[in-house]
Amino acid sequence: MSKEITARSADYSQWYNDLVLKGGLADYSAVKGCMVIKPYGFALWEAMRDVLDRKFKETGHQNAYFPLFIPKSFLSKEAAHIEGFAKECAVVTHYRLKNDPNGGGVVVDPEAKLEEELIVRPTSETIIWNTYKDWIQSYRDLPLLINQWANVVRWEMRTRLFLRTAEFLWQEGHTAHATAEEAVAETTQMLNVYADFAEHYMAVPVVRGVKTANERFAGAVDTYCIEALMQDGKALQAGTSHFLGQNFAKAFNVQFSNKENKLEYVWATSWGVSTRLIGGLIMVHSDDQGLVLPPRIAPLQVVIVPIFKGEEQKANIDAKVNTLIADLKKLGVSVKYDDSDNNRPGWKFAEYEMKGVPVRIAIGARDIENGVAEVARRDNKTKETLPLEGLAQRIQDLLEEIQQNLFNKAKSYRDEHITRVDTFEEFKQVLDGKAGFVSAHWDGTSETEEKIKELTKATIRCIPLNNPQEEGVCILTGKPSKERVLFARAY
Amino acid sequence: MSKEITARSADYSQWYNDLVLKGGLADYSAVKGCMVIKPYGFALWEAMRDVLDRKFKETGHQNAYFPLFIPKSFLSKEAAHIEGFAKECAVVTHYRLKNDPNGGGVVVDPEAKLEEELIVRPTSETIIWNTYKDWIQSYRDLPLLINQWANVVRWEMRTRLFLRTAEFLWQEGHTAHATAEEAVAETTQMLNVYADFAEHYMAVPVVRGVKTANERFAGAVDTYCIEALMQDGKALQAGTSHFLGQNFAKAFNVQFSNKENKLEYVWATSWGVSTRLIGGLIMVHSDDQGLVLPPRIAPLQVVIVPIFKGEEQKANIDAKVNTLIADLKKLGVSVKYDDSDNNRPGWKFAEYEMKGVPVRIAIGARDIENGVAEVARRDNKTKETLPLEGLAQRIQDLLEEIQQNLFNKAKSYRDEHITRVDTFEEFKQVLDGKAGFVSAHWDGTSETEEKIKELTKATIRCIPLNNPQEEGVCILTGKPSKERVLFARAY
Repeated sequence: MSKEITARSADYSQWYNDLVLKGGLADYSAVKGCMVIKPYGFALWEAMRDVLDRKFKETGHQNAYFPLFIPKSFLSKEAAHIEGFAKECAVVTHYRLKNDPNGGGVVVDPEAKLEEELIVRPTSETIIWNTYKDWIQSYRDLPLLINQWANVVRWEMRTRLFLRTAEFLWQEGHTAHATAEEAVAETTQMLNVYADFAEHYMAVPVVRGVKTANERFAGAVDTYCIEALMQDGKALQAGTSHFLGQNFAKAFNVQFSNKENKLEYVWATSWGVSTRLIGGLIMVHSDDQGLVLPPRIAPLQVVIVPIFKGEEQKANIDAKVNTLIADLKKLGVSVKYDDSDNNRPGWKFAEYEMKGVPVRIAIGARDIENGVAEVARRDNKTKETLPLEGLAQRIQDLLEEIQQNLFNKAKSYRDEHITRVDTFEEFKQVLDGKAGFVSAHWDGTSETEEKIKELTKATIRCIPLNNPQEEGVCILTGKPSKERVLFARAY
Repeated sequence: MSKEITARSADYSQWYNDLVLKGGLADYSAVKGCMVIKPYGFALWEAMRDVLDRKFKETGHQNAYFPLFIPKSFLSKEAAHIEGFAKECAVVTHYRLKNDPNGGGVVVDPEAKLEEELIVRPTSETIIWNTYKDWIQSYRDLPLLINQWANVVRWEMRTRLFLRTAEFLWQEGHTAHATAEEAVAETTQMLNVYADFAEHYMAVPVVRGVKTANERFAGAVDTYCIEALMQDGKALQAGTSHFLGQNFAKAFNVQFSNKENKLEYVWATSWGVSTRLIGGLIMVHSDDQGLVLPPRIAPLQVVIVPIFKGEEQKANIDAKVNTLIADLKKLGVSVKYDDSDNNRPGWKFAEYEMKGVPVRIAIGARDIENGVAEVARRDNKTKETLPLEGLAQRIQDLLEEIQQNLFNKAKSYRDEHITRVDTFEEFKQVLDGKAGFVSAHWDGTSETEEKIKELTKATIRCIPLNNPQEEGVCILTGKPSKERVLFARAY
């Protein structure tokens, strides 16, 4: 089997695909635009999901489940929303197949046409707010803090594994509040939950900011986001949290009686992250030898490979390894002992390197005599010979070092790739050179933003939170500006 | 608010709906046949899912995720399969909406018609076996042991919350093996996993058996099942595990080279349980006061309600309760302290009774003086006054007693409702009387089975595993029979 990976410098996009496919994360499927998430990729998603789910519950949210299908008329009730999603949705029109009487095989039964078409959810605001109408009567029913883990479908023409697929997995939080202030507080709280998750678990540094009107979610008053930087200098939106104002409450007539017994429309938020995060994770840390996964979410943290000739050597190694495994498990470290004889140690080394397992331990007969093992780090490819005595604790510490190192490395890269420019010439030079985020003044209009996008393919990724105020002039129009915003080419 | 529940004796079906709706488990949705699973119901599903997922992983399975959509032609490749699912499937025919140029609002864009229709998965054998074709080449790739947690859609005309909905949540295991023996062993292993889960977690006794040809899964060689008995004497199929032979391997041309380097078709199994289990759980244990949930899967095991007048009494109670809560949490018991002042204690008692919380602890000012608390069991409605000293441990033991009691009670009921009959007259009498399972001889033909169903609405639920062999004659035709089978009217 060929496990050769295209180098980043040769073809970044092919490098990415190689990692996803050969690393065993996902596969193409027979359905255009839809992917198969393979066991290793799904284990990674489960690890990420479990951390997020715990954080959602710690902040008072409960999970629920709403229908996959949305009546067409619901989608149309919020004007910006239908505008945003109509062009890319899967439409169910019939509910039965039958045998073609003319011998054409199995065909759609024209008599089983739905009265109203159903849309496979691209997001669930409409069906959820239609439900909340029945659940919310009084201020006592608020806040309503609900999250859903689900599959959604957006009919994309050009797809990339994890980054952009017709069907993807995600979570969508949908909350209802009595006041605008509370809803805004929720929106920023969840943005911070995402940022904390990205930085402390995925080891991916992110910029927290707010989107411009052009890049806002269809139906939102404000869209907050976290933006990450990939190794090719392109940005990736890693999570969004929307303040929806009263738009959906008005569209679905969701009112509550306040403490003064007056009817008011409810204030809303929604927030989500998806399997797209996996694409970002890959592109931030991995290298030309394969995936590099941060220990806190790696499906497997440690692999142990024995090197031996004959049963006697094997038995000696097994005895020591079994103790080590028990010690590691006691410390909560996930570990696999790969003593299969199908493959040679060198093949195994390459395989686990490809899969991004953070720590590899190799133990040979001579090592046993010396009471040591060879410990190799995936992140910086260093190796050390360490005593078996106390090794489990050392490994646990090492995993934490690796986690920190990955974050620090990614943060240095990201920080080196935020460039302040004051002219459009410099702006273009940076984009075509080192790329990354470009911090520049902009006149605040959608027209200028679109013009810059047209000329450079760069979009405003966000206006950073707590952005310093500074007098300046727009790089394109020369009109006055009060703050810099972050531009980048993006996924 | 009215939390009145219809009595089982008055209208069993209405009693069931009352429990689901007023117990906060699920709600109807705006989409015909689809339900909303509310937070309390979803927490119950999560508890069930977590146990099952652990058991699947312990038996060597990994999770993965396959596309929601299945090309129409795939569904047609296995003859029995398309026959079984064609009549009830949601068909996606278009991928875009647009504004009607004639002012008819948002309509399906006729130019965005799919070349081939996509079916929303009713089950995933076809898309998965089409994928396995690329994953399996050699005997070294086998067994392949994969599970998927997913939503599926079967277009049902008459729906019941949890029991029969157009969309439902489930897991589907799909495994590939080198030999028929291994695949059969997997099929029965997973049947036993389901039975163990039903009995030890849901406290629902089940009969393990095999389906007759009439009741087999569309595409299976053999369908194994677990069957449970509801309080109205009707049976409910609670899980199925299918030995698929080489049917799907042949339909999708999945072959492997064996150790002798010869090509063979792969042997398959699939197995699943769904949110339907929640319907069964409700109907086995609950009573006219509300839900009764077994402690091992109850989202909340213990609720504590303070009874006080004034802040000073409250503070005294709080102090003791905080210690108790800490002790319970240390033992892994989930507990909620409901000290909200929105509702009176009596209202709270009724509410948690409705929700089936296994243990309720009430503590008043006098109790604190005496160092005791009142502990009420949901299952048998008994109350005891117990010392606060050592109470957490006592509660933990009590939860185990409740778990056992629920199982024993359900098992006694079930065992009393298995009736052996030898004539068709008796058969009908039992069905129209105490109902339950009827153990009777049958001549082994599909015609007789269908005739009996037509005459009585009873179906053969299963041929129990390890069924004693016994000479007899068919209750309908008088033809010879070698074993009894279990009939029942069923959900």
